[in-house]
Amino acid sequence: VAKRLEKFKTTIFTQMSMLAIKHGAINLGQGFPNFDGPDFVKEAAIQAINAGKNQYARGYGVPELNSAIAERFLKDSGLQVDPEKEVTVTSGCTEAIAATILGLINPGDEVILFAPFYDSYEATLSMAGANVKAITLRPPDFSVPLEELKAAVSKNTRVIMINTPHNPTGKMFTREELEFIAALCRGNDVLLFADEVYDKLAFEEDHISIASLSGMYERTVTMNSLGKTFSLTGWKIGWAIAPPHLTWGVRQAHSFLTFATCTPMQAAAAAALRAPDSYYEELKRDYGAKKALLVNGLKDAGFIVYPSSGTYFVMVDHTPFGFDNDIEFCEYLIREVGVVAIPPSVFYLNPEDGKNLVRFTFCKDDETLRAAVERMKTKL
Amino acid sequence: VAKRLEKFKTTIFTQMSMLAIKHGAINLGQGFPNFDGPDFVKEAAIQAINAGKNQYARGYGVPELNSAIAERFLKDSGLQVDPEKEVTVTSGCTEAIAATILGLINPGDEVILFAPFYDSYEATLSMAGANVKAITLRPPDFSVPLEELKAAVSKNTRVIMINTPHNPTGKMFTREELEFIAALCRGNDVLLFADEVYDKLAFEEDHISIASLSGMYERTVTMNSLGKTFSLTGWKIGWAIAPPHLTWGVRQAHSFLTFATCTPMQAAAAAALRAPDSYYEELKRDYGAKKALLVNGLKDAGFIVYPSSGTYFVMVDHTPFGFDNDIEFCEYLIREVGVVAIPPSVFYLNPEDGKNLVRFTFCKDDETLRAAVERMKTKL
Ligand SMILES: CSCCC(=O)C(=O)O
Ligand SMILES: CSCCC(=O)C(=O)O
Repeated sequence: VAKRLEKFKTTIFTQMSMLAIKHGAINLGQGFPNFDGPDFVKEAAIQAINAGKNQYARGYGVPELNSAIAERFLKDSGLQVDPEKEVTVTSGCTEAIAATILGLINPGDEVILFAPFYDSYEATLSMAGANVKAITLRPPDFSVPLEELKAAVSKNTRVIMINTPHNPTGKMFTREELEFIAALCRGNDVLLFADEVYDKLAFEEDHISIASLSGMYERTVTMNSLGKTFSLTGWKIGWAIAPPHLTWGVRQAHSFLTFATCTPMQAAAAAALRAPDSYYEELKRDYGAKKALLVNGLKDAGFIVYPSSGTYFVMVDHTPFGFDNDIEFCEYLIREVGVVAIPPSVFYLNPEDGKNLVRFTFCKDDETLRAAVERMKTKL
Repeated sequence: VAKRLEKFKTTIFTQMSMLAIKHGAINLGQGFPNFDGPDFVKEAAIQAINAGKNQYARGYGVPELNSAIAERFLKDSGLQVDPEKEVTVTSGCTEAIAATILGLINPGDEVILFAPFYDSYEATLSMAGANVKAITLRPPDFSVPLEELKAAVSKNTRVIMINTPHNPTGKMFTREELEFIAALCRGNDVLLFADEVYDKLAFEEDHISIASLSGMYERTVTMNSLGKTFSLTGWKIGWAIAPPHLTWGVRQAHSFLTFATCTPMQAAAAAALRAPDSYYEELKRDYGAKKALLVNGLKDAGFIVYPSSGTYFVMVDHTPFGFDNDIEFCEYLIREVGVVAIPPSVFYLNPEDGKNLVRFTFCKDDETLRAAVERMKTKL
């Protein structure tokens, strides 16, 4: 294995989903719904397959999807982008992240992440030879330590990378935090990579795209995907939006990582993104109810539950149960309780920072959530 | 753009396919059929979508596809591999190539390619920081210059990378060439990366997987895909087969490049790979007829046509028409003749080596091939 990947293990999502199957445990670990995506999107995929849209797509996306992405971004962020020059379709947001990092980062470039972070960020930055600094977001509210962040920015800093709504904490970056980060980027000529895959799962306030803040669009790559919003995580349709000079790098890497993305699913994604507002409202209402169900259950079971205002995850503290760390707690939870969660220590540069925490997802049908809660209330 | 990608241009396939659309020219450039894949495979995809197989697949592949890949490899190469530990499903063979290179190559490792080569090889090796050496295969038969190859192997050589049947020349590596390469690998502790996506398009002799030669499996990554064999290039299902110690590196990179591949298309791919032998025989017969149609037409039009014994490409020499190089010839061909082909100079470390050549594909319906030939016969 290449040295740059040596320190990384099998992704925790795969490990945990496989343990769930092995132990017949209820899987509140990896973030995929156990219910299906909307019929109108599945129908659009079937139509595309039957219509013979089965050959290589244009590398950077089928025109109708690039347009639909640009339209939705305009609606959501107020930014008008050129679908032909500023939108790149990728095989899931994970590939958007890889193409952005491998396409724009040089060895030795310094990149600032917020820990905990989705594990691909660090691994892909390692492939690109970047130097990673991490600013830790701490419970209970996981707010950005502004002065610490400011002190971390140096003349070598090339990128700040954010994820809002934030996986695994459920935190949403506030307008004040985003403005502070934006000012640092503008003042130090730093790029901003924004992973916004949970933008439609914002329960209290609307999501804010950092690209929409003054002077930010020209230095930002905004990434998103179909999977979370349309409960079709297996279709692997993602995208990156950026001004042409950054899109060029993203597209170059994308060309050589996957070349193009599954054609019929792109046609279906275009149909999905044109869903009426009511679709998004209903999604948020449904997930709000699921969140309440899980959060109340976790509290009843005895966890310290931190507020989740976005994503379909909630972070809790397991210390009331007396385990040494998150791995040990999660092992007990699988074996003795029959529930799978994600131990978040793998999302920190320093695993110690996450050892009291556990992440649960509520992207499951109510029956599953109730059963999991019941198990935890009785067996923990 | 990251420095390592600076020298690379928009892939020639994208450039040429876009020019084809713009000029309304007949596209014999990029290798995708203008006819559809088989109904039973499309039906399998539709069934999978309807059955709700729409969430994240297991990262390294859905079990039924891993098994189908292992079964087919056993049938084709005689090698028994463990579908769980030695097969990784990727988003097309391009991703298999990227994951193999980024997962196994360290900066400074020397990699030997045969020029002309599929353009992603060099770009991805550049992302990994490899030193690339190229051995040029020359017309008329594009045979491997054995002594030159032997002299190129040094103590820094980590990998030899082959593609057989070979894009863009249509050459198939002979058993003698493969044995010679295998001996070099064994004798110098060199790995072998084999791109075999055209294995089922071998017109004269059966394809030989180099992994099946004595002592080679343990040092070989064999890559393949669904797209060419099943005329579904847009579905982007590929895979890499390798012993566990190499699969580990491939899977690590894959986890962070795309994480997993489109779930319903994987289910359909498993069905496809279990096609009866008659499917493959018919495919070969159909393409054999198309090859004859195009080759005869190109000869009649005045090209020097080199033999193509595999793939759906044929390489020709355009010098009878008096152009300075392949780019100029291809531009004339698009504008004045209305046919798109691929100028192969981009597939060489030294573009001069390809300047007399042009690549045509015959993966088009007979009517299209006839129309293209007609245009070239009358307008060249
Ligand atoms: C490949 S898992 C992607 C992210 C996610 O869904 C999770 O954090 O569980
Ligand atoms: C992405 S193009 C893949 C290879 C191919 O089909 C070609 O060489 O034309």
